Amino acid sequence: MARVIVDVMLKPEILDPQGQAIARALPRLGFSGVPAVRQGKRFEVELDGPADEAALKEVRKMAETLLANTVIEDYTVRVEE
Amino acid sequence: MARVIVDVMLKPEILDPQGQAIARALPRLGFSGVPAVRQGKRFEVELDGPADEAALKEVRKMAETLLANTVIEDYTVRVEE
Repeated sequence: MARVIVDVMLKPEILDPQGQAIARALPRLGFSGVPAVRQGKRFEVELDGPADEAALKEVRKMAETLLANTVIEDYTVRVEE
Repeated sequence: MARVIVDVMLKPEILDPQGQAIARALPRLGFSGVPAVRQGKRFEVELDGPADEAALKEVRKMAETLLANTVIEDYTVRVEE
């Protein structure tokens, strides 16, 4: 059993209203020194087998077709240590 | 300028219907060997200053009060390399 992490974030050129709302709320809540926040998604994908190159290729395909909208989002795939 | 990552995931004992829906959709889409998926949130927090211990303490307070619902969610804070 291995666990692979897929992080999905909006592309840098895409506006992120959720992140902006958080960044704007922070000063009101007493936090300073945070000019920007971006919000994305994190998926923990459990694998029956080992996280070898073939399995990671499958997870990348999964991210591409199901987990991320690659028109507006970037994703990264990594094995959890 | 430093960037701190806050990962927010549902606690292990809390049901994750989004993750379950993904895990159940995978076989239909031709993916096998993935018994479970859990979905959470990822925040990229930009800091004006360095990510020193004081700044990380502030980000942890931020996660506790704004980014995570600690009744049902766990969070981790780490500096992006």
